This record gives sequence, structure tokens and C-alpha cells, in this order.
Amino acid sequence: MPARRAQLVGTGLIGGSIGLALRAGGWHVTGTDLDAASAARARELGAIDEVGDDPAAELTFVATPVGTVADIARGRPGVVTDVGSVKASIVAAVGDPAFVGGHPMAGSEQEGVEGSRADLFRGAVWVLTPVAGTDPSAHALVRSVVSSFGAEVVELVPERHDALVAVVSHVPHLTAASLMRLASERSEEHAALLRLAAGGFRDMTRIAAGHPGIWPDICIENREAILDVLDLLVGELTTMRDRIDRADRDGLLDTLSHARAARLNLPGRLAATDELAEIRVPVPDRTGVLAEITTLASELGVNIHDLEIAHSSEGAAGVLLLIVDAALVERFLDGLAARDYRASARGLE
Amino acid sequence: MPARRAQLVGTGLIGGSIGLALRAGGWHVTGTDLDAASAARARELGAIDEVGDDPAAELTFVATPVGTVADIARGRPGVVTDVGSVKASIVAAVGDPAFVGGHPMAGSEQEGVEGSRADLFRGAVWVLTPVAGTDPSAHALVRSVVSSFGAEVVELVPERHDALVAVVSHVPHLTAASLMRLASERSEEHAALLRLAAGGFRDMTRIAAGHPGIWPDICIENREAILDVLDLLVGELTTMRDRIDRADRDGLLDTLSHARAARLNLPGRLAATDELAEIRVPVPDRTGVLAEITTLASELGVNIHDLEIAHSSEGAAGVLLLIVDAALVERFLDGLAARDYRASARGLE
Repeated sequence: MPARRAQLVGTGLIGGSIGLALRAGGWHVTGTDLDAASAARARELGAIDEVGDDPAAELTFVATPVGTVADIARGRPGVVTDVGSVKASIVAAVGDPAFVGGHPMAGSEQEGVEGSRADLFRGAVWVLTPVAGTDPSAHALVRSVVSSFGAEVVELVPERHDALVAVVSHVPHLTAASLMRLASERSEEHAALLRLAAGGFRDMTRIAAGHPGIWPDICIENREAILDVLDLLVGELTTMRDRIDRADRDGLLDTLSHARAARLNLPGRLAATDELAEIRVPVPDRTGVLAEITTLASELGVNIHDLEIAHSSEGAAGVLLLIVDAALVERFLDGLAARDYRASARGLE
Repeated sequence: MPARRAQLVGTGLIGGSIGLALRAGGWHVTGTDLDAASAARARELGAIDEVGDDPAAELTFVATPVGTVADIARGRPGVVTDVGSVKASIVAAVGDPAFVGGHPMAGSEQEGVEGSRADLFRGAVWVLTPVAGTDPSAHALVRSVVSSFGAEVVELVPERHDALVAVVSHVPHLTAASLMRLASERSEEHAALLRLAAGGFRDMTRIAAGHPGIWPDICIENREAILDVLDLLVGELTTMRDRIDRADRDGLLDTLSHARAARLNLPGRLAATDELAEIRVPVPDRTGVLAEITTLASELGVNIHDLEIAHSSEGAAGVLLLIVDAALVERFLDGLAARDYRASARGLE
């Protein structure tokens, strides 16, 4: 039986990873990229079988910047899907029953084909946005292939997807950039004082350090949803402003308590938050501390689901936050205490 | 020679840590707290020599919530300083030459006297806000004692301090809460979809999970500076909005590029960013991976200055970001490659 044939347009991190995952599943993959070197490298890395177009491809993945997807996808033979982070404008512009909009929520941390991995999508959410006119068999094909990569498929109306990513991704990015600009304006007076910026500020502005090249297109393709959310955010900030201006302690406490409850209830990356606990370990900044603590966890059979170093000051010391199985907390705390770490634990709910 | 005598009002995390640091330096420390149990516990933990007031104290630290500092500090004998996160209103309300406003930028990660540590302030910035009327010998005393804790003293005009913390702490907190409220309003329609929220959103809203109790006082004590910065932030967001509305790609790219440059230039916790590099290691989510990587670093003599797990997706896998000495990058990368980790490195500048 001949291999099923797929086509890849765009061989960056996502495209390359799709290629690797397809080939791992036995597909024959042909691929192109505007950057010929990237396509050649994708072949070297085994992400595609050959460089070029495959008119006989059963399925095409368009993994190019959002502004270019519709033109590439329109009128292609076979079933076509994409990976753009905006969906309504693309789905409307393609307008083809054999096109199924898609958005894998994975992989923004490394760029380029070099970062490609066959398992990039394992456990990741992959949004699909079929609409009334979508061919059910096209939808079923994309869904089954994407599921075979280990992704968890979530179906959404395109506009709903766009509204959600405006809230959880696009507007946060614009806000981080705005906060960073404010801080940097102040810093011109006295740059060294930005060292006062503690961990919270660093966390909030980290995403503003990303390459801005993709953002103008995203902002414009998802204009309506982003403008809505920006307006809501300005409204929230204005309410906050009024409460401070009126010295409305109760109102401020209400607002912040609501936000706190919402953050604590933010559905985890991890299914059952009642089965997890957070361990806080004050740690000095010296070689070996992380190794000691993570090795201890490993020896005790404690899986670390998440970990961060919270720098509570500009100083070198910090607090290590570890998310571990609640059932193993006592064992881990005992082990830490035996090594003179003063750790504390709390549930996640 | 009898021990020098200090008084502590408030024996929470900061007060307790000051007590431990003072006693480590040979001081006799007397302390009180509105919560008698906290004062008693501070004595058990060795943070104070005795519970009570010491009219003969040479130096008093007021480590109570910002709204209460001025009343406690006013008219006390000896030199008095505080640790409040707002300064102008307190300094003006106390109006005493023997009072020196202070703000140690440390310790927000754990609460209560149980988290106290003698070395909490080592390497931390400790802002002092002497004014024209401050007694120079009072200033010198506070400065020398605080320096003896290992803190780096930064002198600022009170209003300047307040403007800076409004930018790097207070308004970011209010913004995180606002973003979280928006997301949670949307989530009422479809809660599970907040799982789409990737690492960037989690990072930006983490501080909104903090206990809100201290914030109404901070907001009101630092009202002027916070209102100024909120207005500037709303202005930035409105500019962003207009550019998106007009589809002004160049303007958006400019704005975001400026923010990116500012974030990359954010003065580090770490003095010389050209001597550091970032290593990115895609990692699966399983027991022992962190131990393996941090132990490798330790064996190779590579100190990990900072570490985070960037969850690029909702899935279990992630990218481990490690900040290490640039000089040891090759050695570390070789070691990682030998263990089949596909790591990459980049400079911080």
C-alpha cells in the first residue's frame, strides 16, 4: 500500500514539527518554504521527504504567517488546513468547504526549523474551526491526523477562537509592551532604578521581549476582537482608577479579591488541581542547590509538574516554587527538612 | 560593653527577618505585634530577645502595614525607620528629623514570621528616603545598620520612590488583576477554554493571585503616583488601539520594537548581562529530567543564575530556560548533547 501523501507550505518550527509528526505516522511529505534554505534544512532534518509541490497530496498544512495563509490556501486541491493564530478572517477569505481552520497552541518558545520536534504537539490543545459550509469528511480527516500527533482537539467557532486568543494572548502581549514602554520612559531619568523592578514586573513584561515581526499582522487580522478586549481592559483600569481616586477601599478589595479567585481557579495545564500542591523553598543562589532539590525529588519519586524561581528581591536569593503531587507533599517536605531547607506547602485551590 | 538596643514593631516576615539580622549582628531586640501570638512566635524563633517595648532603644523598625506606619512612628524616642512600600505620605505624616523612610525590596514571596530569615536582605535593594529635614546622624545610623544586613542601599526622594514603585509594582499588579477579571468574565461562557491560556498569560496574571488585603492601603497611600501611571498606561493602550484600528503596521511594529528593546535592556538582577547566556532545552515532562539537567550543570561547575520552565503549550512538555555564565556555555551544551538534549544558546544582549 502506497504511503498517504501530505504537502507542507512553510517549514518553520510548526511546519517542521508537523512534517516530523506526519512522517513518524508513515506519511510521505513534500514541502516548500519561501526561504529555500529552510526547506532544504527541513529535508536534512527529516521533516520532509522532498522539497517541492505535490499536486496529489491528500492533505495540505499551510504553516506560514497569518497574513499570507488565505492566499496560499485558496483553491488548493485536496483537504487544506492551517496553523494561524487568527481564524475568522482566514476562514472567511478562503471560503472553501475543503478548508478547515486550525491553531495548535504550541511551540512559540523556539523559532525556526531547527527547533522542530515530532512530539511538539503531544498533549497540546489544537483548535479546529469548522463552519457550517465545511465538508464533514475534510473536518474528520484533519481531526484524525492532528489527534494522531497526540494533540487534544478543541472545536470552536472562528469568532469565538479569536475572541479567546485576544483575551489570553493578543491583548496581554500589547499590555506587556505598554507597561514596558512606560517603565522605560521613566528609566531615561534614572536607568539604574529599574533594578527596583522585582519578579512580578519581570514576569509581566517577559513576553514583550519576543520578536515583534509577527504582531502587526496578527493585530490587523484579529482587529475586531482585539479592539473589543482593549476597550474592556481600559474600562477595567478606569474603574480601578475611580475607586482609587475615591479612596474606595471596599470596592478595591472586592475587585482584587475577584481577580485573585479567578487566578486561583484558572484551569491548570494540569487536569486535577486538587491532586497537586505548591511547595515553596527559600534558596540561596549557589551552584548545586537546584540539583540537590530536584535530585531529592527524583529520589523520592516526586514528579515536579512545574517549577519557577521567584525572585522576591533584586538580590541573589529567591524562593523556589515547585508544583508536585499533593499525595507526596509530606514525604518531600520531610526530605527537604532533613537537608535544612525550610520549605512550606499549600494546596492549589 | 552592653549590646546596642533595637525595637521592632511588627513581627511578620520582614520584621522577623530584621530581628534575626539585628541579633546576628549582636543587637538586643525587643518586639511587639498587634497579634500577640506572632510576637511570641518571633521570640521562639529567635527573631527577638523579648516581647514588649524598649524605651531605651537606639533604633526602632516599624514593620507594619503602610496605613498604620505614620501613627506608630510619630513621636517615638530614638531613630525610627519603616519598611512600607509607599514613602511620601508616610514621611510627610511623621515629619520627624529622626525618622528615615525605608523600603526593603525583598520578601514578598512568603508570609508571616515563619518565613523569616536572617539573610533575607542579602543582596536586596533597600531604598531609603531621607529628606531635607532629616537628621544626618539618623540617616547614617539607618544606612549602616541596613548595610550590615547585606542590603544595597539606594537613596531616593520619597516622591521619586513612589513614582517608580507605581510603575514597576503597583500598576502592574492592578493591570494583572484587570486582565484576570476580563478573562474570567469570558470564561463564564465556557470555562474549560481558559485552558487555552498559555504561559505568557499565566506569567502576566500570577501576581493577581496574591492576597489582596494589603492593596487598598497601598493604592490609597500612593494614590497620586498610581493615578498618573494608570493614565499613562491607558494612553499607551489607546495609542495601540488607534494604530490597530487604522491598520498602521509600521506604527505597531515601531511601538512593539521599542518595547522589546526596553525589555531586553531591563537592568538585570545580575550585574553583567554580557557575561551571561540563556540556554533553552526542550524537555519532556517526567520525573528526573530537572534533576538530570541541574545535576549536570553542578557537575560541570555551571552555576544556574536563573531558571524557568516555559510552557509553550497546554501540553506537558516545555522548554527549560537557564541563565548561566556565558564562558561555560559550550561546556554545558556539550554535556547536554551527550545526554541527548537538543539545547540552544543565545546571549542576553
